[in-house]
Amino acid sequence: MVDLKCTADFCIIPIGTPTASLSQYIAEVQVMIRSSGLTYSMHSAGTTVEGPWDEVTELIGKAHQVLHDLGIPRAQSDIRIGTRIDKKQSFPEKVAVVEKILEEKKKQQASETKSVV
Amino acid sequence: MVDLKCTADFCIIPIGTPTASLSQYIAEVQVMIRSSGLTYSMHSAGTTVEGPWDEVTELIGKAHQVLHDLGIPRAQSDIRIGTRIDKKQSFPEKVAVVEKILEEKKKQQASETKSVV
Amino acid sequence: MVDLKCTADFCIIPIGTPTASLSQYIAEVQVMIRSSGLTYSMHSAGTTVEGPWDEVTELIGKAHQVLHDLGIPRAQSDIRIGTRIDKKQSFPEKVAVVEKILEEKKKQQASETKSVV
Amino acid sequence: MVDLKCTADFCIIPIGTPTASLSQYIAEVQVMIRSSGLTYSMHSAGTTVEGPWDEVTELIGKAHQVLHDLGIPRAQSDIRIGTRIDKKQSFPEKVAVVEKILEEKKKQQASETKSVV
Repeated sequence: MVDLKCTADFCIIPIGTPTASLSQYIAEVQVMIRSSGLTYSMHSAGTTVEGPWDEVTELIGKAHQVLHDLGIPRAQSDIRIGTRIDKKQSFPEKVAVVEKILEEKKKQQASETKSVV
Repeated sequence: MVDLKCTADFCIIPIGTPTASLSQYIAEVQVMIRSSGLTYSMHSAGTTVEGPWDEVTELIGKAHQVLHDLGIPRAQSDIRIGTRIDKKQSFPEKVAVVEKILEEKKKQQASETKSVV
Repeated sequence: MVDLKCTADFCIIPIGTPTASLSQYIAEVQVMIRSSGLTYSMHSAGTTVEGPWDEVTELIGKAHQVLHDLGIPRAQSDIRIGTRIDKKQSFPEKVAVVEKILEEKKKQQASETKSVV
Repeated sequence: MVDLKCTADFCIIPIGTPTASLSQYIAEVQVMIRSSGLTYSMHSAGTTVEGPWDEVTELIGKAHQVLHDLGIPRAQSDIRIGTRIDKKQSFPEKVAVVEKILEEKKKQQASETKSVV
């Protein structure tokens, strides 16, 4: 058992599919994720999930299982997984923090331009 | 030169920073990306960009340059980069396609439940 | 529990380190991996491990724990993890298979050159 | 143009292949890499290449082109790419550095055990 919270962003690729269109497979994986109870967000390049390390990595394993159950012989995921012990931060806050900094930068630049004028 | 369009999702990590908070650095990278003219979207686990292969990979290289210019000695990116020649698809459409399938699945299940009743 | 064998290749990055040299940290992670009993191989861009899904992902979580125990506030791993149900293949065999194909290609080309002459 | 040296480790996956066995495709990519003149090393989970940013990312783009030329409609790569400006280090040295630390640790432990006895 790993006693850590984590945020994982994963992109799963079914291998050996008759077609290059993967959305049907991804939809099946999403159905499973939705039923997991973990906080998650799907974007165009993957799905971000957060929770206890064991639950999150188990969820990704179940995503592989979903594909194999559909007859896909092989699957590969790319996972970016992060842990931190200095503070709690939920992944939806991260973008807000960066956007706030960007907003402040803009204001600062605007005010600097004014004082130059 | 590589004559391919691509979609890349990258997560850049500055290494050897005095703090574990990276948002200030990420904001500087975002300023550069915004000025690039490429279609992009920031999410909590990275930034998705699309365009010609050479421009997209150059953009990511410039993100490394931005960090080094700030005095960061080392940086590492994880990049998921995809190309396809069977059809054109812009990354914002991908999520919509999956969500449409999920919507149809729901309707189908609802109608199946009805007919059972 | 996930009932699948997997091969995972991971690259762990400590974040918020006083220095850009990570080898001391990586060495501590390697000590833990060596004691795990799983089949593994370290290369310059990561470590490949194979075994049951739960054990492999737990090992990577323990790698994060090792870093946190050393006082590192934050860590991120990039993981490539694959499963397949069509055949058993241990990761050290993969390179051999590709190299055999390359060898055969060379022979074929040599013999084609001969017959042209 | 990006004026940085880099080390990239990439794993390319052909999508929409009739089979789950990818070694034939990987072998074709390896033939191209071998002819590139860049320093590289194939391992079971990818290929590590080093050189100028533009040349390395172009090489990976060419790997996608190789697959498309073979009729593969879609391909995705996972790339770990690193740059550093504090020192020059060639990727084959990295493993040696970690192994040297591990060796020293062993010696130290052995000598500590001795002095306890």
